[in-house]
Amino acid sequence: MTKQTNSFLRIYPLGGVGEIGSNMTVFETENYNIVVDYGILFPYEDFFDINYLIVDISDLNTKKETVLFITHGHEDHIGAVHHFVKEYPQTQIYAPEFATALIRRKLEHRKLPAKIKIYTEIDVFEFDDYELHPLHVTHSIPDTYGIILKCTSESRAILFISDFKFDLNPMFEKPFEIQKLKDHYTSQKDRIAFLDSTNILTPDKTISESELTEGFEEIFTRKQRTFITMFSSNIYRMKNILETAKRSGKKITTIGRSIGAYLSAAEESALIDLKEYPIVDFDAVLNYEDPNLVLLVTGSQGEFLGAMRRILNGDQKNITLNENDLFVFSSKPIPGNEKKIYRMYNQIAEVGASILNFREMKIHASGHPGQEDLKALIDIANPTDYIPIHGETYFLRKHIDFINMHYPHIKTYFLENFQGLDFSKSPFAFFNFDQKEPLLIHGDDIVIEREKISERRKLACNGLVMISINLKNQNISITTKGLPTLVDTNVPLHKDLVHEQAFNKFKNRDHDYTTEQIRISSRTFYHQFLGYKPIVIVHML
Amino acid sequence: MTKQTNSFLRIYPLGGVGEIGSNMTVFETENYNIVVDYGILFPYEDFFDINYLIVDISDLNTKKETVLFITHGHEDHIGAVHHFVKEYPQTQIYAPEFATALIRRKLEHRKLPAKIKIYTEIDVFEFDDYELHPLHVTHSIPDTYGIILKCTSESRAILFISDFKFDLNPMFEKPFEIQKLKDHYTSQKDRIAFLDSTNILTPDKTISESELTEGFEEIFTRKQRTFITMFSSNIYRMKNILETAKRSGKKITTIGRSIGAYLSAAEESALIDLKEYPIVDFDAVLNYEDPNLVLLVTGSQGEFLGAMRRILNGDQKNITLNENDLFVFSSKPIPGNEKKIYRMYNQIAEVGASILNFREMKIHASGHPGQEDLKALIDIANPTDYIPIHGETYFLRKHIDFINMHYPHIKTYFLENFQGLDFSKSPFAFFNFDQKEPLLIHGDDIVIEREKISERRKLACNGLVMISINLKNQNISITTKGLPTLVDTNVPLHKDLVHEQAFNKFKNRDHDYTTEQIRISSRTFYHQFLGYKPIVIVHML
Repeated sequence: MTKQTNSFLRIYPLGGVGEIGSNMTVFETENYNIVVDYGILFPYEDFFDINYLIVDISDLNTKKETVLFITHGHEDHIGAVHHFVKEYPQTQIYAPEFATALIRRKLEHRKLPAKIKIYTEIDVFEFDDYELHPLHVTHSIPDTYGIILKCTSESRAILFISDFKFDLNPMFEKPFEIQKLKDHYTSQKDRIAFLDSTNILTPDKTISESELTEGFEEIFTRKQRTFITMFSSNIYRMKNILETAKRSGKKITTIGRSIGAYLSAAEESALIDLKEYPIVDFDAVLNYEDPNLVLLVTGSQGEFLGAMRRILNGDQKNITLNENDLFVFSSKPIPGNEKKIYRMYNQIAEVGASILNFREMKIHASGHPGQEDLKALIDIANPTDYIPIHGETYFLRKHIDFINMHYPHIKTYFLENFQGLDFSKSPFAFFNFDQKEPLLIHGDDIVIEREKISERRKLACNGLVMISINLKNQNISITTKGLPTLVDTNVPLHKDLVHEQAFNKFKNRDHDYTTEQIRISSRTFYHQFLGYKPIVIVHML
Repeated sequence: MTKQTNSFLRIYPLGGVGEIGSNMTVFETENYNIVVDYGILFPYEDFFDINYLIVDISDLNTKKETVLFITHGHEDHIGAVHHFVKEYPQTQIYAPEFATALIRRKLEHRKLPAKIKIYTEIDVFEFDDYELHPLHVTHSIPDTYGIILKCTSESRAILFISDFKFDLNPMFEKPFEIQKLKDHYTSQKDRIAFLDSTNILTPDKTISESELTEGFEEIFTRKQRTFITMFSSNIYRMKNILETAKRSGKKITTIGRSIGAYLSAAEESALIDLKEYPIVDFDAVLNYEDPNLVLLVTGSQGEFLGAMRRILNGDQKNITLNENDLFVFSSKPIPGNEKKIYRMYNQIAEVGASILNFREMKIHASGHPGQEDLKALIDIANPTDYIPIHGETYFLRKHIDFINMHYPHIKTYFLENFQGLDFSKSPFAFFNFDQKEPLLIHGDDIVIEREKISERRKLACNGLVMISINLKNQNISITTKGLPTLVDTNVPLHKDLVHEQAFNKFKNRDHDYTTEQIRISSRTFYHQFLGYKPIVIVHML
């Protein structure tokens, strides 16, 4: 027996649940689609320079008024906003100040106008029977919010925090807003929680950014030119490093486009005042060998275009490494990047320079809650119903196991992308809808179809033979790409074969038939040398 | 002042130092090249289905008699032996029995004859002024040896162990041969040691295979169909699992080609007697849903062709997963495979089946020494000179730091591939020689050049446009591969452009010039839609 209530509410993730990235969840009330975040996903396997994947939003219910509500400025939450603006230019966007500064850069670069309003923790939004209270939380980027969605007609509230750490003593910002949680959530009868699964395998409490100062202080006592690499979006980490470096009498410079972009957005949002620090523009550094020089550089994950890789490959002007250099990784490998990161370690070790990472020193703090943090939050929020989000499927299951073990009275739900929960019904009802494959984005924001990617894979794995046949003068041109030289030496023999087929064996058959026969026999011809068949394209004209 | 001695000896690694894989080290005496191992290396970055890399041996000094000495049967030590046999068919190969069985399979498959002699720990080889004593060690594959090279004219010995664990209580084999070490090494004046760096970041002692039995016993009390995945070459792990499964009343079957191959080689080498265990051929299993069924499966690292991936993708006949299934990972992720392994975890979690891995239970033991094992060995061997091997550069440096800290009296040497140490001189002299890039092997043991790989990468990342122009009848054919559909719709426009250039703008220029102009303007034409330029091939004929 289900009971229909008046306060219609469905919540369904379209991305970010069962995967890490492309976060997007729709809160659907009677007249509104509140789309929470629209981020990008980095591909699981190598997709040949594909930039990223995004959720396909072409099916969004446009009969309802759609607003885009941004929780924070990480790329897996805002990276696809310009695609949203292109598809639904009238959408009202609400975002925190820092995320707004970052989104505006994306839109300006593409000359796209958009309606963005900045919100803060004092704002309250009304959507039908619901009040949306932005809940300020701590994370690894400033200006991060969770959501409390409080029903005005029934005693019910939703807590939705996809990314947070439970830091009650942050260095530079307000702590996690506990009072608002108590006022608008814990006081309700039905308390539904959607919470972050990223660190569910970590049993401990996540350390505070403030605990890293000591490590940086120790590092800055060393008389070594020091390269520090980290995520550029972690403004407070950078601020911590800058303040410590300043106290230690160090000079600071930066290498890498994204650090510059994030720092300027941070300045615009009044999060940092760069004039306070001894920062020198990289091109204006007087002595690049200065043992007092601290270089903040991008590319901590070994990114192809990151400054770290450029420096280690010897391609960064003015920088030649030596064995007195110190490299500080104020970061942790994202699964999948270990090999690229070890490659950087090896390059540093080849020069004989030193490496410090999170294993050897407290110089990195996660932005996500460990099990102890989740417990601390749950003990305050006291949810009745619980849905793990923001994690791969394995992590969601582990999160459910964790809740079931420690809080057996809380009802847990295993929710995947393209599944939703209807909170208008009691008990809450699951619903499913057709899964749409995420779109692959390449080059200038272009969508590329999956079958084209598979064509690319075939070209890369098997190489190419291109054959043109002039039916008038019987000329034949053959070009190979990506095939061993061993094969190239057999091209004259192949030409004879093509000639025989085109102008003798199949000369009376129609073009399509002959073309296909030549294609097939050419593949077989190369198979004998290679053990596999290359892609063959035949033009008869 | 260097002193020349009579007992000429140079040792130089050509692979495996500064990288993980393609192990190969040459011990050069007055009249011999003793090549120790010839393994394969898996590529660092995605090389588009490239099988593996091998050391280029074309420069090997063939004026000396060359022997190939195999330490054990892992692919990074024997994987390229058939290439050696092709290049130097007369080479005498010495190998332990199990490695011999594995090498013979490779050679038979390729119909290559070879001279292989099996050695055991009772053999001693003579090479000029040196005795080579194979030293039986423990590792993650049976029949593994280190080398003691003892000078007969001076008081000097070399200890060379690229892979080992210091297990004094192994389950099924003889322990590490300590007495031989004392007899032929520790007693010498100059004691040079080349030792394994794989686990140098691990402070502890590596656990023995025998410590895993308890975990498997606990697992087999569960009434769940159980999939266990592990490296197929770890015969003693398999034997431990088989014995425990038998005692627990389980039925056993295997899925995956490599398990079958390793088990049959192990049987041939009298390492295991399969008749002793309740093993059923997969096709003969009566009830595939049997909660008493234990399935040993390949693909613990998420390998593309591994049985694990096939099972999880639903492509394994007779197997449909359900939430009562248990997956046991008796393995540890090799750096670089984390993402593939998490993908498997996610697929299992989607079904709702359970996962056990090394984090949750003692079900995996490394085959390499942790710091405490190295200490235990060093305390017995008491080397005077120390060279870390078998590891990436970062690990070699860490290994040197470790020795310098704990054994400051031992002289350490940082040696890389294509560097050698000349032990005929005192003090030992470093020498360098020209580095040759490893060869990329693809398809049927074919070498593919690096520039061809870079052609493949360009094809995959940028897509292809092929243009043929018939100069007689002015026909033009255009084919695209791997480009978004958006681009295909513009092909007619492109054809007009090509026609204009070929038969109007450049009609009086020579073919090469016109072809190049058409190629360039075609790339620019597609750039406007894509934001990047595809590969364009033009045939005018």
